[in-house]
Amino acid sequence: MTAKVKTVCIIGTGLIGGSLALALKQSGFCQRVVGAGRTEATLKKAIELNVIDHYETDFSLAVNDADIVVVAVPLSAMKNVFEQIAPALSSTAVVTDAGSAKQTVIKDAESAFGKDFNRFVAGHPISGTEKSGVTAAFTGLYENRKVILTPTDKVDSGAVELIADMWRAAGAEVETMSAEHHDMVLAGTSHLPHILAFGLVDCLNNLDEVDEVFRFAAGGFRDFTRIASSDPVMWRDICLSNRKDILDMMNKYQDQLQTISSALENNDGEALIEIFARAKQARDQFNNQ
Amino acid sequence: MTAKVKTVCIIGTGLIGGSLALALKQSGFCQRVVGAGRTEATLKKAIELNVIDHYETDFSLAVNDADIVVVAVPLSAMKNVFEQIAPALSSTAVVTDAGSAKQTVIKDAESAFGKDFNRFVAGHPISGTEKSGVTAAFTGLYENRKVILTPTDKVDSGAVELIADMWRAAGAEVETMSAEHHDMVLAGTSHLPHILAFGLVDCLNNLDEVDEVFRFAAGGFRDFTRIASSDPVMWRDICLSNRKDILDMMNKYQDQLQTISSALENNDGEALIEIFARAKQARDQFNNQ
Repeated sequence: MTAKVKTVCIIGTGLIGGSLALALKQSGFCQRVVGAGRTEATLKKAIELNVIDHYETDFSLAVNDADIVVVAVPLSAMKNVFEQIAPALSSTAVVTDAGSAKQTVIKDAESAFGKDFNRFVAGHPISGTEKSGVTAAFTGLYENRKVILTPTDKVDSGAVELIADMWRAAGAEVETMSAEHHDMVLAGTSHLPHILAFGLVDCLNNLDEVDEVFRFAAGGFRDFTRIASSDPVMWRDICLSNRKDILDMMNKYQDQLQTISSALENNDGEALIEIFARAKQARDQFNNQ
Repeated sequence: MTAKVKTVCIIGTGLIGGSLALALKQSGFCQRVVGAGRTEATLKKAIELNVIDHYETDFSLAVNDADIVVVAVPLSAMKNVFEQIAPALSSTAVVTDAGSAKQTVIKDAESAFGKDFNRFVAGHPISGTEKSGVTAAFTGLYENRKVILTPTDKVDSGAVELIADMWRAAGAEVETMSAEHHDMVLAGTSHLPHILAFGLVDCLNNLDEVDEVFRFAAGGFRDFTRIASSDPVMWRDICLSNRKDILDMMNKYQDQLQTISSALENNDGEALIEIFARAKQARDQFNNQ
């Protein structure tokens, strides 16, 4: 593949940014990947692991001649990064992000780049593991995974196509939807499950018999709570960013649990079996997709 | 290995009973495995798959010359099966079960075999998959898994040792504890997580955007909800059998969720990060065990 662009700058070379860098280098999508971040040791590690070609700790220098700038930092750091790079972007540079909530990022971008900026393409790769950091990065992270782009109406269609091409080069399947729709869907499939898993592990951890409880945990528990090993700062940010949709989902879920505990209180096996059977059917169907 | 006993009779040749049969045959623990159940087609399938050596649909005939009888049926069927086999057991036969809740099974056994019967060893293999039925059975299901035995004080120690030997022959590690303790621990590590997963899938399934929600679900969701594919009847039985302990855990968990949703309502990032960080630490520790 002839390189589509010269330089991709990735700000934040952790699991998400680092894996994208590896995939782009392997695919030949760009001629070079410049990494940027606050911590020089991380960037040096990224060079050592051959994740990036060059690094800068000054974000203005980093984005200076970039054709694409990917901001892969925690949601709470987005606005500050956008403000730092805004004055230094070239007149054709396309900016995107990899945040797990999209409405707040779009607001942050508008505030930093201005309402008329039409080269910010909000994006979210639906991938990741419970690990974090550049040492967890790997080339295949986006292989056959979905990436959702949520550009607003004013965004230049060429800019959207360029970011879509970039993710396709990394092996992903790209879909486009509104930021509002994205945030609602992800609240259900990702944000709520993470909260439930964090909550369960913390709840069991408060029991007097905590050692016993973890000692007899089996595979189901292991799978169910794997995501509770995720980065707490990242998840605090996601919770605060997508607060409204997550609260909506949590309310629905709390009602659901109340229904189940009432059925238990009343020894109502019929009600339990109805819920469990509906869930099994839906889950089996999902499995066969 | 010289066969330890002549005949093991397994009532209920589904995933749990069938996998035990396969493991016992492979290990040479017994000379033959007799399968029993209500449905002749299942038993024929078990013969065809070489899971059992012989079958009976009449439980009295099945247990007639058995040294060990393993009752691996849903919790709601235990009492009835115990009543059917009680008059036909040999004077030395040891009976055990594989139910996921232990206090109710012990009560059922006492009612069927009499208060003085000292050869019933309640047991629970902490293993299984979300699949069920004899076609899902496999030899290695108990390999390196824990089996908890919860014999009451009156149970003959030789009987306990025989059942422990049987599970060890199947590859398992055997532990002993009280039925009360078992039921509390399992409510936290297994029963509550199953309820939470069933509840989440059913909750999402009720959304108007259900197709979208499942379409964008990633690996975390897949792992988190795998157990929602489990058998609804089995889980209704577990819920009703271990009602009190499960309700206790559910109350604690509902309080935990309320704490999290209040933190969200109040935009309290500090409170969220505290919970998430404690959970991550506990989960990482569990992973390293």
